Amino acid sequence: MSPDAKKPRLTGQVRIVGSGLLGTSIALALHSQGIDVILDDISPSTVQLAVDLGAGRTPAAADTPALIVVCVPPDVTAQVIAEELQAFPQAFVTDVASVKSSVIVELEKILEASGPDGAVSTANLSRYVGSHPLAGRERGGAVSASGDLFIGRPWVICSSVTSSAEARAVVESLILDVGATPIEMSAAQHDKAVGLVSHVPQIISSVLAKQLVEADDQSVRLAGQGLRDVTRIAASDPELWVQILGANSDAIVPVLEALQGDLHNVTEALRNVGAADSRTQITRELVAGNAGVSRLPGKHGQANRFSTVVVLVDDKPGQLARLLNEIGDLKINIEDLRLEHAEGAQVGIVELAVLPHAAAQLVSELSARGWRVAE
Amino acid sequence: MSPDAKKPRLTGQVRIVGSGLLGTSIALALHSQGIDVILDDISPSTVQLAVDLGAGRTPAAADTPALIVVCVPPDVTAQVIAEELQAFPQAFVTDVASVKSSVIVELEKILEASGPDGAVSTANLSRYVGSHPLAGRERGGAVSASGDLFIGRPWVICSSVTSSAEARAVVESLILDVGATPIEMSAAQHDKAVGLVSHVPQIISSVLAKQLVEADDQSVRLAGQGLRDVTRIAASDPELWVQILGANSDAIVPVLEALQGDLHNVTEALRNVGAADSRTQITRELVAGNAGVSRLPGKHGQANRFSTVVVLVDDKPGQLARLLNEIGDLKINIEDLRLEHAEGAQVGIVELAVLPHAAAQLVSELSARGWRVAE
Repeated sequence: MSPDAKKPRLTGQVRIVGSGLLGTSIALALHSQGIDVILDDISPSTVQLAVDLGAGRTPAAADTPALIVVCVPPDVTAQVIAEELQAFPQAFVTDVASVKSSVIVELEKILEASGPDGAVSTANLSRYVGSHPLAGRERGGAVSASGDLFIGRPWVICSSVTSSAEARAVVESLILDVGATPIEMSAAQHDKAVGLVSHVPQIISSVLAKQLVEADDQSVRLAGQGLRDVTRIAASDPELWVQILGANSDAIVPVLEALQGDLHNVTEALRNVGAADSRTQITRELVAGNAGVSRLPGKHGQANRFSTVVVLVDDKPGQLARLLNEIGDLKINIEDLRLEHAEGAQVGIVELAVLPHAAAQLVSELSARGWRVAE
Repeated sequence: MSPDAKKPRLTGQVRIVGSGLLGTSIALALHSQGIDVILDDISPSTVQLAVDLGAGRTPAAADTPALIVVCVPPDVTAQVIAEELQAFPQAFVTDVASVKSSVIVELEKILEASGPDGAVSTANLSRYVGSHPLAGRERGGAVSASGDLFIGRPWVICSSVTSSAEARAVVESLILDVGATPIEMSAAQHDKAVGLVSHVPQIISSVLAKQLVEADDQSVRLAGQGLRDVTRIAASDPELWVQILGANSDAIVPVLEALQGDLHNVTEALRNVGAADSRTQITRELVAGNAGVSRLPGKHGQANRFSTVVVLVDDKPGQLARLLNEIGDLKINIEDLRLEHAEGAQVGIVELAVLPHAAAQLVSELSARGWRVAE
């Protein structure tokens, strides 16, 4: 379960600047493997919290980190990278900001402005490799941190022309040590990709949710799981997201324009719903939506790997445990489970994902034991 | 848990026309309470499947239904209602189509055209009350049906000026018998509400998903839970949805226009991201999105009623049962539960929703028993 048993690839001290969710999670993952992790943050109480969580120790004057991971908000990332490169001339430096091109452009500017000649900036830049773990949680902060946050998640490495091969290798070791999957991309490729799969969806979810602000209470009562899913990320932190969106506008604007074109087509087709090709036009957009969503990997990175079995349970302590005990007796592994309660009813709906060959057995065995089951 | 013990309010035969997900689910709920349920469908094999599932029986010449529930696709709903009103002159009739104004308008046209004078249409219309259960599943068809589908869900009754009070009362009995919550709305109110909370979200999810069609594989690999949530309903059936959207265009277009205005504002702000008020503009949209999503009821119909506790479990049979047994020993009721697996890792992340006063106790007790827990 934990990576404790494995020997880490990284050697030497690792300094983490910024003890939020990502910084503390990285620290927890590395510290649990015996690595000397140094935690720093502009807020001393935040560092102390991360230390209390067992993520590492506070900085000391004699620190000689081999690797520095900058985990601060996007707007200050380049500045902090520059400071770290200059404060620790032997260390490799990476960052985890979710936009990469703007960080390297800004970093080059800062280093050029700070050095007396070009040699300073080039030398420093060879020790820097940008990166971005595609991991997170709805709640931020060290309290939500987990050493398992990165397990199996993609973590993009953006080596630039100035990055040394050694710096790249060290960052790859970091990624493997925390259990993530390294993916090589250029900063431009990365920014285009996250613009599409992360930044535009955030904007879409937010503007849709905005339409609910003026809705009457009775309309809102009719909302179901669909609307809840589409608007879930609209609850994200505006302060962080305006930084991310602002730093990646070049990649985001073309996707927004294409999307607005499609939305315009649907709106015009609906406005003239009696016209000959109106329904064809709308159907075409819906079918394309089917095709788009089918490209997304499912749970465990594979589409439709599991079958779903639905079981009804009483809404009282011990019922779910009883169900799971009986499933345990059947030696069937539950891959994913979701319990939902019917509104206002004393009944819970348990959705169990199991390997397809186990589904029929599970349904018949549970039915035989008196559970109310559907496949 | 099951409604078997209760005596149903409905009396007499109930005829269900259309044995899909909704029709069969209503039939299952009523038949389990001893009601004589008659199933009909243009497809004999579909009816047989519903009968085999225990939802009722096939039609007989001597049938005298007290209530007819029309559960056919929106495009043919008005025509089928008209046929049923005329075939069974003693029966009350309702339908479950997700758009209401267009059904009544079309129904009036059909009845006026079919009768020799106005009296026929008025007399027939008094026996009709439109309705719409806000319930469904991702999978359609009788095989996905469940007698518990409507428990606790809103079910809108749209009495029109022509509906008799008796017809309305019978439809309310149906709603209560299947465990749903009746909500009175006019057809116009209903259509405006579902346009906002259901139809526009469907369009938004579809056009966002469409943008993924041309994406390269590497970009799609970076997709996380956020994109998956926003695009989940983009997998919906285009044939059904083009009918729904087409029938409710008057309510949908104004919401789409407002949304496009907001999207335009964000796009222009991003295009001129250096401009003085650009970030303020973007932040304002994101903050409004926060406000909008906060209006949605949470699980059990109430926002933020529960605290979340996160526990890590080994990905093998029996682990979750062991956890839930220990929670059962603590006499703490789990309100909602979600198990997720870190991709490729032998570890599951269990999110438990509990009443706020129980969260701290749960965390300390589970930690004491050796579980890896976070609040």
